[in-house]
Amino acid sequence: MTTPTTSSSSTYAIGIDFGGTSVKLGRVLPDGTIAARTSFPTVGMGVDAWLDAVEAAVPALLEGIPADARFAGIGVGVPGFVDFDTGFVYDLANVPGWASVPLAERLRSRFPAAPHVVIENDVNAMAAGECAIGAGAAYRDAVFVTLGTGVGGAILINHKLYRGAHSMAGEIGHISIDRNGPQTATGKGGVEQYVGNRQIVKHALDLLATAPASTLLDQVPDRDPAQLTPRHISAAAEAGDALALRVFDDVADCLATMLASVAYTIQPEAFIIGGGVANAGEILFDPLRRHLNERLSPYFSERLTLRPATLGADAGLIGCAMLALQA
Amino acid sequence: MTTPTTSSSSTYAIGIDFGGTSVKLGRVLPDGTIAARTSFPTVGMGVDAWLDAVEAAVPALLEGIPADARFAGIGVGVPGFVDFDTGFVYDLANVPGWASVPLAERLRSRFPAAPHVVIENDVNAMAAGECAIGAGAAYRDAVFVTLGTGVGGAILINHKLYRGAHSMAGEIGHISIDRNGPQTATGKGGVEQYVGNRQIVKHALDLLATAPASTLLDQVPDRDPAQLTPRHISAAAEAGDALALRVFDDVADCLATMLASVAYTIQPEAFIIGGGVANAGEILFDPLRRHLNERLSPYFSERLTLRPATLGADAGLIGCAMLALQA
Repeated sequence: MTTPTTSSSSTYAIGIDFGGTSVKLGRVLPDGTIAARTSFPTVGMGVDAWLDAVEAAVPALLEGIPADARFAGIGVGVPGFVDFDTGFVYDLANVPGWASVPLAERLRSRFPAAPHVVIENDVNAMAAGECAIGAGAAYRDAVFVTLGTGVGGAILINHKLYRGAHSMAGEIGHISIDRNGPQTATGKGGVEQYVGNRQIVKHALDLLATAPASTLLDQVPDRDPAQLTPRHISAAAEAGDALALRVFDDVADCLATMLASVAYTIQPEAFIIGGGVANAGEILFDPLRRHLNERLSPYFSERLTLRPATLGADAGLIGCAMLALQA
Repeated sequence: MTTPTTSSSSTYAIGIDFGGTSVKLGRVLPDGTIAARTSFPTVGMGVDAWLDAVEAAVPALLEGIPADARFAGIGVGVPGFVDFDTGFVYDLANVPGWASVPLAERLRSRFPAAPHVVIENDVNAMAAGECAIGAGAAYRDAVFVTLGTGVGGAILINHKLYRGAHSMAGEIGHISIDRNGPQTATGKGGVEQYVGNRQIVKHALDLLATAPASTLLDQVPDRDPAQLTPRHISAAAEAGDALALRVFDDVADCLATMLASVAYTIQPEAFIIGGGVANAGEILFDPLRRHLNERLSPYFSERLTLRPATLGADAGLIGCAMLALQA
């Protein structure tokens, strides 16, 4: 792609954040700067079409780079189970046609000049970004949590991602908070059955049936319950609506139960929390800290920090590239 | 104590396993052999009396050792919170008078010839023994579980004990399996509130009130419910008693809920399970494997082994000494 040199000032990697609705690509520098970016929609795209689209998108990212710029490689974050060591994608739960894909191998054949091609789980990629230049940079041992459709996690041990025996560690959304809770393919009572976006909305609507005085629907276009999102609920909570505050208190208590279990298991220094629901800020973090302290021995709670993630929607893109730069 | 040499064939360490009722001491060789052993009762013993008793007990362990034997150090396993790096005991929950004790420092002043003095949590010590020469030796990433009065854990990552950010990782007995479960100082619904020795007995007696045909009490002296222990329940289960089998199935399901949470968090290769309740053998392991498989995605369950510990009551003694030998 370019002639490799030893000049680190113009080193770059291509990060590819493979999301459920769009694929974001960026040329990322070692300090985390996204020097160029582009994207294309994911919808209904099989492996070959995806590779074609990536190959077509990359040249625009490289316009105007110095002639001696060093290409470090390509990092991809994917929403599913991956073998990091081999770059093999087992399964992307929400993207049809993506099962048993040797993605690193397929990408290497498209980009033979790439010194490294790394494939990582999307939450691990986000964590890699947060710990390279974001909220996690200050910690040796931390756990990253993303709150969205589900609950994802990534574990940092001794400044490095810890992937477990088979690259799948950090699936903290499946941690049970009720051994007799709802049954799914991953167990019973997994915390994401209570605090995923849809579950939060359903919980609010259930409560609304018994609290008609709530101002919750004032936040929603046409007061249409079908359009309610967690963002409306956090806005109502900020305006002091009791029902909305109750919803976030319940969400926080469910999350605190799971986080306490993680803390007792590996005792991190910090939980770094990102994703859409975390945008609620102190509406979430205040009850979360309180419930977590209630659920932990002081030996643990006094030695544990809870922090919002700082890179926002770019964490994954930056993190994928960082993994290639560090490879 | 002796003149250090480089001869590893006659190297030894003193292991001290500080239990709630007795303190076991041993001279342990690098292959895990306990070359000599002794013990004294713990009961009501403060720090100074304990140090006196240790100092008095050690000479007998050293009788007849080769003149050139190399003393590697002393390792102590204690039942409570410890800072491994400094050898500081924060608190032993069940041993009065043992809070804020700089135990390594105190031992060094009694045994100035010891090249190393290491203080470790008792479950970590057991795990160190099992992974040096027992059931854990085959694994890089494993979790050790002890079942007794409570539930303890220790985490092996990359062949080494992982102690977390502040030496307290592995407190898996406090992992919640019901966010609205019984409240204790360490949270709500911690698994040891369901599967500790006393809770198992209570659960069996509760069931017995509704199942008078059970043969459970046939196992117990004088058919006295007050003398019932988990061992009687496992004997009744082996004899086919439906109530006793139900008790072990419930215990297994509670444990499986917790183990699944640990597996989703750090994905070990194996769980190594020891302690009194684990002596029930397949009466426990059979339903435990079944419930764990029900509660895990196949990506996890197919890559996970469940094994009994193999060193029995000596695991802690051997493990403490191994930590000193490896220091």
